Amino acid sequence: MNLKIAVLPGDGIGPEVIAQAKKALYAIGEVYNHEFVFEEALMGAIAIDKTGNPLPEQTLNLCLNTDAVLFGAIGDPKYDNNPNAKVRPEQGLLKLRKELGLFANIRPIKPYKALIDASPLKREIIDGADFTIFRELTGGAYFGAKTLNEEGTHASDLCEYSEEEITRIAHLAFKSAQNRRKKLTMVDKANVLETSRLWRKVVQKVSANYPDVALDFLFVDNAAMQLILNPKQFDVILTENLFGDILSDEASVITGSIGLLASASLGEKNALFEPIHGSYPQAKGKNIANPIASILSAAMLLEHFGLFKEANIIYQAVEKAIEYKVVTIDLKPDSKFGTNEVGEFVSNFI
Amino acid sequence: MNLKIAVLPGDGIGPEVIAQAKKALYAIGEVYNHEFVFEEALMGAIAIDKTGNPLPEQTLNLCLNTDAVLFGAIGDPKYDNNPNAKVRPEQGLLKLRKELGLFANIRPIKPYKALIDASPLKREIIDGADFTIFRELTGGAYFGAKTLNEEGTHASDLCEYSEEEITRIAHLAFKSAQNRRKKLTMVDKANVLETSRLWRKVVQKVSANYPDVALDFLFVDNAAMQLILNPKQFDVILTENLFGDILSDEASVITGSIGLLASASLGEKNALFEPIHGSYPQAKGKNIANPIASILSAAMLLEHFGLFKEANIIYQAVEKAIEYKVVTIDLKPDSKFGTNEVGEFVSNFI
Ligand SMILES: CC(C)[C@H](C(=O)O)[C@@H](O)C(=O)O
Ligand SMILES: CC(C)[C@H](C(=O)O)[C@@H](O)C(=O)O
Repeated sequence: MNLKIAVLPGDGIGPEVIAQAKKALYAIGEVYNHEFVFEEALMGAIAIDKTGNPLPEQTLNLCLNTDAVLFGAIGDPKYDNNPNAKVRPEQGLLKLRKELGLFANIRPIKPYKALIDASPLKREIIDGADFTIFRELTGGAYFGAKTLNEEGTHASDLCEYSEEEITRIAHLAFKSAQNRRKKLTMVDKANVLETSRLWRKVVQKVSANYPDVALDFLFVDNAAMQLILNPKQFDVILTENLFGDILSDEASVITGSIGLLASASLGEKNALFEPIHGSYPQAKGKNIANPIASILSAAMLLEHFGLFKEANIIYQAVEKAIEYKVVTIDLKPDSKFGTNEVGEFVSNFI
Repeated sequence: MNLKIAVLPGDGIGPEVIAQAKKALYAIGEVYNHEFVFEEALMGAIAIDKTGNPLPEQTLNLCLNTDAVLFGAIGDPKYDNNPNAKVRPEQGLLKLRKELGLFANIRPIKPYKALIDASPLKREIIDGADFTIFRELTGGAYFGAKTLNEEGTHASDLCEYSEEEITRIAHLAFKSAQNRRKKLTMVDKANVLETSRLWRKVVQKVSANYPDVALDFLFVDNAAMQLILNPKQFDVILTENLFGDILSDEASVITGSIGLLASASLGEKNALFEPIHGSYPQAKGKNIANPIASILSAAMLLEHFGLFKEANIIYQAVEKAIEYKVVTIDLKPDSKFGTNEVGEFVSNFI
């Protein structure tokens, strides 16, 4: 297979971890005879520094015209702590999601047996947990109109959803549930929000097409609790953008490290793969960032193109790395292995 | 002291647990020579059933003209699962918060030593955790304009905040931090939301008055993770309405049971005290609901009026109940004690 892949390393630890994902893909290409062509481009704080624009035209055009995007992380404290900054790295990512129409962010959560004691949760709570979060990614308060009055004393964000936006991701989530344990939990705040009531209504409607999938509803406050009290109850979770942002980061604690979680963001035509962790600026350049989430993002990319055998080798390699404790310090505080060494181990395994 | 207290038992288990809180207050009144006059009124689904209105005028007037409100819980599945219901129990509660101007919801989180193993989190993670969440309660997406188009295919919720709304709760939170470990963590989504950027700016401004309090900021997705990874890092958490709703329910898992958590909602003139758990309709009438959160709400009420000694006796009584395992089945699955028995134990202790 020939694939043209846009690579956006981004900020902080992004470049370091993405380098390891590329290494894994190169190894896969060689062994299984695929041609992966990588083209790098700027996004995030680094793009602002170099061009003034967090998502330069050139980057966007590249992404629109490749088979897939492999993305690292963006964000820089110099923007976070300045509420007056007009241009921010996140704008680049949000614009990219919107322009590529990446409406579904998919985040699988499943603890590794060998790491089960790394979680702050008790073993019996998480052993056996295995669920996937479908987070809507191009709607909600992220993209609605924002206002700030002239005096800077009053602000607003509009959360908006249409039936169409809900329907398309609901179908993806129900289909995924059909291939799993046939349970879908819709998370919303329908006792307060009008958009949540629309979600409930539309998801109920879509569910008629999937009579084999059991549908239930949870309020987001309760869901935030249930994720920790009893994560095994979940199979597929479907929710809107902001709730998905919060819940999927929360759910990462089940696996013991956010450095292990990958995600796919899918649209009608485009697809982007990224670790769910952020740019972690404190770790930049220190060879301590965990590359596994990025490497697993590469595996999700392969799966997306039907390369299941290839993806599986990567999953196995990661499992071995964890089993042999070839992991970074977030998983083993006294580890002597760094970002590079973990990446080497995985690509050598392939 | 003479206090006139409006009592709104509400729905589900509300009446059962509130009965125990009243019992505790009666006992305090007798022993310490206070006169507490209780007046009951309707709110929630029960008020809709009886009057068509989730917050009847009479109830509102009563609450406006008492010293404090003691509230149980509201909510009924017949409304939750009907996205078309025009009148909902929650509207009563939201209207009450707004009309009484209860802008600050305060939820202390601290695990009981004797229950530390009831939490899904490991002992070493939670032992020593002790923080308080300040949740803004009369603004944000809860109260902004809502729309649904005629075809029922497009909905919106507006999240709004003004400098004034942020300032008043920020002062309360900073003052609380001054009396605690002098650390305030502001939780927002300032990398995406305009309202969050206003929060950051205003809280930074207010912080100038509290140079002895260390201020830091966390994005809400990260906060949802940090609460579980390392809850001991927090002292006072300040956040907007919806984030506070999610995070405070999430934080309840630290204590092992949401049935243990009380909250105070304060305004300029009025104050309301309530357990943070919901109406738990499945448990209604079974004498299995945990009354401790309601009893602790009564203790917070006493503290609010400066009756610290009296509040302390209740805290002690609850600690003894937990120590002697006179608790409901949520805390001890094979317990032979019910709602009533736990309430009796506490009031007998006083
Ligand atoms: C960086 C930020 C804008 C982003 C989001 O909130 O979507 C991130 O938290 C994520 O989840 O991908
Ligand atoms: C019942 C509901 C409207 C309410 C809220 O979301 O505020 C509840 O969850 C709470 O936290 O008091």
